[in-house]
Amino acid sequence: MPSWTLWRKFPRVPSTPKLNNVVTSSGSMIVVSNRLPFVLKKNKDGSMVRKSSAGGLVTAVAPVVVNGGGLWVGWPGIHLEHPDTPIPESDPDDITPTAGLKSEKVVAVRIDPEVFDSYYNGCCNATFWPLFHSMPDRATFQQEHWQNYITANKEFAQCTMKALRSLEKSSQQPPLIWVHDYHLMLAANWIRQAADDENIPCKIGFFLHIPFPPWDIFRLFPWSDEILQGMLGCDMVGFHITDYCLNFVDCCQRNLGCRVDRKNLLVEHGGRAVRVRALPIGIPFDRFVELAEKAPVVLNTNQKIILGVDRLDYTKGLVNRLRAFEKLFEKHPEHIGKVSLLQISVPSRTDVKEYQDLKEEMDQLVGRINGRFTTPNWSPIRYIYGCVGQDELAAFYRDSAVGLVTPLRDGMNLVAKEFVACQINVPPGVLIVSPFAGAGETMHEALVCNPYELDGVAEVIHRALTMPEDERILRMNYLRRREKIYDVDHWTKSFLTAMGSLKTQEGDDLTPISMPAVTLDDFDEYLAKYIGNTHKLALLLDYDGTLAPIAPHPDLAIIPPETKNVLQRLSNMSDVYISVVSGRNVDNVKEMVGIEGITYAGSHGLEILHPDGTKFVHPMPIEFQEKAGKLMRQLQEKVCKDGAWVENKGALLTFHFRESPVNMRKELEDTARTLIEDAGFQACPALYALEAKPPVQWNKGRASIYILRTAFGVDWSERIRIIYAGDDETDEDAMTALKGMAATFRVTSSDITKTVAERRLPSTDSVLTLLKWVERHLSRRKPSLDPNNYRRNSLRHAAVQMEMYTVTKNQTKNASIKESINPL
Amino acid sequence: MPSWTLWRKFPRVPSTPKLNNVVTSSGSMIVVSNRLPFVLKKNKDGSMVRKSSAGGLVTAVAPVVVNGGGLWVGWPGIHLEHPDTPIPESDPDDITPTAGLKSEKVVAVRIDPEVFDSYYNGCCNATFWPLFHSMPDRATFQQEHWQNYITANKEFAQCTMKALRSLEKSSQQPPLIWVHDYHLMLAANWIRQAADDENIPCKIGFFLHIPFPPWDIFRLFPWSDEILQGMLGCDMVGFHITDYCLNFVDCCQRNLGCRVDRKNLLVEHGGRAVRVRALPIGIPFDRFVELAEKAPVVLNTNQKIILGVDRLDYTKGLVNRLRAFEKLFEKHPEHIGKVSLLQISVPSRTDVKEYQDLKEEMDQLVGRINGRFTTPNWSPIRYIYGCVGQDELAAFYRDSAVGLVTPLRDGMNLVAKEFVACQINVPPGVLIVSPFAGAGETMHEALVCNPYELDGVAEVIHRALTMPEDERILRMNYLRRREKIYDVDHWTKSFLTAMGSLKTQEGDDLTPISMPAVTLDDFDEYLAKYIGNTHKLALLLDYDGTLAPIAPHPDLAIIPPETKNVLQRLSNMSDVYISVVSGRNVDNVKEMVGIEGITYAGSHGLEILHPDGTKFVHPMPIEFQEKAGKLMRQLQEKVCKDGAWVENKGALLTFHFRESPVNMRKELEDTARTLIEDAGFQACPALYALEAKPPVQWNKGRASIYILRTAFGVDWSERIRIIYAGDDETDEDAMTALKGMAATFRVTSSDITKTVAERRLPSTDSVLTLLKWVERHLSRRKPSLDPNNYRRNSLRHAAVQMEMYTVTKNQTKNASIKESINPL
Repeated sequence: MPSWTLWRKFPRVPSTPKLNNVVTSSGSMIVVSNRLPFVLKKNKDGSMVRKSSAGGLVTAVAPVVVNGGGLWVGWPGIHLEHPDTPIPESDPDDITPTAGLKSEKVVAVRIDPEVFDSYYNGCCNATFWPLFHSMPDRATFQQEHWQNYITANKEFAQCTMKALRSLEKSSQQPPLIWVHDYHLMLAANWIRQAADDENIPCKIGFFLHIPFPPWDIFRLFPWSDEILQGMLGCDMVGFHITDYCLNFVDCCQRNLGCRVDRKNLLVEHGGRAVRVRALPIGIPFDRFVELAEKAPVVLNTNQKIILGVDRLDYTKGLVNRLRAFEKLFEKHPEHIGKVSLLQISVPSRTDVKEYQDLKEEMDQLVGRINGRFTTPNWSPIRYIYGCVGQDELAAFYRDSAVGLVTPLRDGMNLVAKEFVACQINVPPGVLIVSPFAGAGETMHEALVCNPYELDGVAEVIHRALTMPEDERILRMNYLRRREKIYDVDHWTKSFLTAMGSLKTQEGDDLTPISMPAVTLDDFDEYLAKYIGNTHKLALLLDYDGTLAPIAPHPDLAIIPPETKNVLQRLSNMSDVYISVVSGRNVDNVKEMVGIEGITYAGSHGLEILHPDGTKFVHPMPIEFQEKAGKLMRQLQEKVCKDGAWVENKGALLTFHFRESPVNMRKELEDTARTLIEDAGFQACPALYALEAKPPVQWNKGRASIYILRTAFGVDWSERIRIIYAGDDETDEDAMTALKGMAATFRVTSSDITKTVAERRLPSTDSVLTLLKWVERHLSRRKPSLDPNNYRRNSLRHAAVQMEMYTVTKNQTKNASIKESINPL
Repeated sequence: MPSWTLWRKFPRVPSTPKLNNVVTSSGSMIVVSNRLPFVLKKNKDGSMVRKSSAGGLVTAVAPVVVNGGGLWVGWPGIHLEHPDTPIPESDPDDITPTAGLKSEKVVAVRIDPEVFDSYYNGCCNATFWPLFHSMPDRATFQQEHWQNYITANKEFAQCTMKALRSLEKSSQQPPLIWVHDYHLMLAANWIRQAADDENIPCKIGFFLHIPFPPWDIFRLFPWSDEILQGMLGCDMVGFHITDYCLNFVDCCQRNLGCRVDRKNLLVEHGGRAVRVRALPIGIPFDRFVELAEKAPVVLNTNQKIILGVDRLDYTKGLVNRLRAFEKLFEKHPEHIGKVSLLQISVPSRTDVKEYQDLKEEMDQLVGRINGRFTTPNWSPIRYIYGCVGQDELAAFYRDSAVGLVTPLRDGMNLVAKEFVACQINVPPGVLIVSPFAGAGETMHEALVCNPYELDGVAEVIHRALTMPEDERILRMNYLRRREKIYDVDHWTKSFLTAMGSLKTQEGDDLTPISMPAVTLDDFDEYLAKYIGNTHKLALLLDYDGTLAPIAPHPDLAIIPPETKNVLQRLSNMSDVYISVVSGRNVDNVKEMVGIEGITYAGSHGLEILHPDGTKFVHPMPIEFQEKAGKLMRQLQEKVCKDGAWVENKGALLTFHFRESPVNMRKELEDTARTLIEDAGFQACPALYALEAKPPVQWNKGRASIYILRTAFGVDWSERIRIIYAGDDETDEDAMTALKGMAATFRVTSSDITKTVAERRLPSTDSVLTLLKWVERHLSRRKPSLDPNNYRRNSLRHAAVQMEMYTVTKNQTKNASIKESINPL
């Protein structure tokens, strides 16, 4: 939160919170941010005091927290030595909104200093900051920092749970957890899981204060899937502008294989629909007007002032700005002696070399340009490296002719908004913004210039300096009206509205909060091209959790009649081949499915029963039988308690703990794993189960390839298309082996499932829909008698023979040349 | 064309061209590329010889050029001193396909060495190369280099015209001009214009050999509009993969305001529909198979070889690759002593510091890793910095266990394709590709790994080294089949097909090559939200070229009856305000339009006639009348010849030359400009005309704001929405003044029009459609009696009051809070 950081250094200013009335319909709010709304400082006597922040965001959000009896979770600005270090109450003189935040309502996060440094400086500032600002070359990608980011986020999640537990449960509405910014993109899932486990209802919202980059940049991050899944752990994810929302939705679809609704901005994940919303942040507009009205005149000059106010950061484009300002005098020397640039640069990350280099470059540039143009009574650039008080800043904003906001990339940029708020003089000045800032997108009556085009910036400054009064009034009127209405209080309300927590007469979010169930049409785009019109189709399907809903006991996991019927009909079609690939033993899975004429693979493919009755059994080490019996007995003795049991699947053993109490599971699983591994078996995690496999290099992946080759011969890859659907970790072996060669679906309703599958499906119901789609598609296949139609079909077919999902128009046309070429 | 560069350094290899038969239905082809398909070298005696290239692309394209009697335009690799330096014929021993290219069929481009350096190293390699590879931080943006890029592209265009003129005009089909790569993105428009002027028919196609970045990256380039317009000067623009196509289409829509058709990949520009096509480049597959079959064994080792072959470029991810390889031994020490990385790095841009630094880093890294793991009989990395012969390379490809292609970003990457072509051993090896290469997108049966995730790369290499034989065979079969079919000859054919020049039985490009006419629905998305349901609408419209088609003489530019009728009906609607803003004098424009009750602004707003009969005349310098008379006489004497004439518009003079011969216009215009400026007037270009304006700061922009304020009072901006449409340079003043506050349309059928308008319209017909849309929208406005419907409407209205084009869902809901706030 760059602007927050900036503000924290300014003197405190009183402000009247205006949001007392809006929390009535909402539960208590827990804000989770990297920093608390104050920092702790140690006095000389070792006691601690708070230094409050008076930033716009804190001012807007703190009253909602305080008045609703909520809490604030964050790092206090120093490393506390003891976990039970008491947080001091606020200073009696403190009149900021955070003063009302009693120490009992604060959870100060304690993280090992080395971990914190790696998380904060390594991952947040050296990776996410440049990457999310679309400057990938500046980003470092280090696993160690990423691990510490995970650790830190877990710690924040635990502290949030502490906060959540401390809330009174009297509120009608569930508490609202508001997670902030790129420091905490992973916390939501751990909070959600823990709250579920402890049966505490809550709603989680997230807001990103920086840009969200396009997919082509975002996907560079090696752990991008985890980031997306972390954010999707929330009920609502907010960004500044619609562009960022669409980038995020795009990433969820392309990286995670989620179903998305671009129009209503919804992403389906973990069986839930996550809202994505553009919530452009505002400023405390009235407070700035008040400041501007009261602030004494500081600028004693007849010169026109061009104002820049920024943290000294490479994203801000300060070097370009100075160079463009120099160009102004070259191109329009009439401004020499009459115009000055007042540039305020707030020190930032001063211990990082990149930032030190930038400071040096700026110092030198200011010196050079001033040296070139300065006259005895005038300097072109007045460069303040440091912080400025609010009154003074408001006077600068008010009395400047031009506000120059030209970042190379910026999530929103509040300086642009503060400038227009303070522009109370008549006639007003002119705002110039970069199109690469969120503010450039929303404040479209400002003059826009590309900071990379120095001549262009110079021309736009010239235009601003010479703009007719009526156009200045017109543009500034538009800009000020918008910022007055969409101020920071409005932003807070709009967050509450997006969370469904604030219901006002006009303010309901009327868009749906759930995705429609998976329909036949959902498969069209992905599958129709791939399967085409002449290929045979091989359907490889897991049983439990894929065809049949998960049940407390395997015997109760029964295939729904409708699913069985579709499968039965498909099995009678000449161009479909079906194999059910299960962890169960092969006879059991055949009994559960109950369809003749298809292939059954049991024990993850160690046993395969072909439709003609022949059976493949994977050769296994001779000592396996004996060892397996011994391991079975050990497991029964030591871990078959509290509802857990062992299943003998013939070629392997499965230890089930789905009926054990939640808090027992980990211990049971750990003990079982040790027993299994000590016996020389592989311990493979399955859904609420652990499997003991003999030490053979065989899994559902190798079994799938074996099945296909047995069924279709050596050159099978030319003649068939493959669909694989499964819900289990062991299915990932198959999806990995078939990756790039099959359409793959992972059935999951979990928030944290990682998968190599191309697409996700929320439930066994959607697998049924998939099967129905296949039936519909294949039964429509009959070639039409219309020759044109037939031709088109065969062309399409030719195309999909080679290209699975990325058919290009051109290839479509020439693909049937293939027919004349011998197979390799 | 990185791969081309790579290949040029390899020894020559004979090859049988296979494309002799495909040019029959096509015209002659002129290839325009930065480099000719050979370089010229000076012998010691000063004479020159050719050194031919044998790259796959040259081999595929050269026969098409040679057999069709075409030409090749390009830089010959050295700076020729004289424009008439003869190009030597090819060496008699030369058996490459380019040998057939007679010197008379070669146009060697001559560019001033300093300009060339700035164009090639400054703009192409230091700007476009990193930017298009989505590494914006490495890109420099310098106007000087950009200017030289323009100069160089103009020179290539002129040389192409020379080639075009030299072609016999006997061919039934027009000649085909094929422009290559990021060096020549601007050439097409100059070629098209010159060919039009000289009445030589031709078709122009373009292919980009590097990636095309997403809009969010591309738009950083300050002159991005010019690049897009340059590429749109072609009839067809080709890229490697669909992603790049969509990025390009997106940029055309968002930057230029073009209408686009995403499904059929069409962009409307300059009144034409430009095809955008994915044409993934291939390799001479059979040639590589042959090489692999013949090449002797070079690798005398029992070790498994992992092979990397790359130009030494920062996009190739070589540092990451070595680090990942080191990780392999850390994580899987079983490979120590059994696996080696054979890395071939081809020297590139060795005089650039960035590349020198990279070489040093590589040298050091190789040394360190080898130092860490080497044993007396084994080294982990064999690093060849230099070029390798084709036979040797084919042997490497054939006998390696793993092909490792892990660029950070790559347009396609042909090494991946060459590797699979040469993998003729059974069982084969495994290909690993980066998802950030075009090859990663199309060769999806390869193993994919993110080069930034070092542990992940190590794991994927491990998986490749231990992959079961059946999976290896399966994946390699898929990959080889695709590359055999989609080889480089196929690529050439697909280019011809996309150009509509090759008509084969299966090969026609069936997609439409024209955009449908502008329809009412085209305006819905852009305008419906903006105008909403309660605002008054102000329509500001230019006359000539906007309401009325351009005619040879102003008196003949008559408003079509249908347009007049719609305008008449609109003028009777209470919530529409209309003003026609023209360069004509005000009485004339009123007469031409002929509708009562609307506002007319003449002479670019110097005179304004309100509906109530009152008239505004801009105050002008007293000496204007006299000077104007004198200037009028001067113009009549000196430039009113060859069909040119002067029009006295009262407040200004217009010099028309639309009826003069094309080759006279420039001279007439230049002379007139001198006369006008000498007389102390501003010379303002208009459509086939030049206007002499008195030196007052007044234009259509200031006039528009004046008109609106007069009509609606001071706070007009709150109550109205504005649409501005115009076709002229002088309309840009209005669009600039109203930028961000109005919906603006530039009517243009030109390829090179620059505009600040939000959208482009192809013709006056589409303006009529716009007016019809307005009529339909406003007549549907009557509030419905259904209260729900009414409520929804008023909500929508509230939203658009503040947000013009970027309404966010959230804002939609709370916007009516506005009602209770006093205007500022």
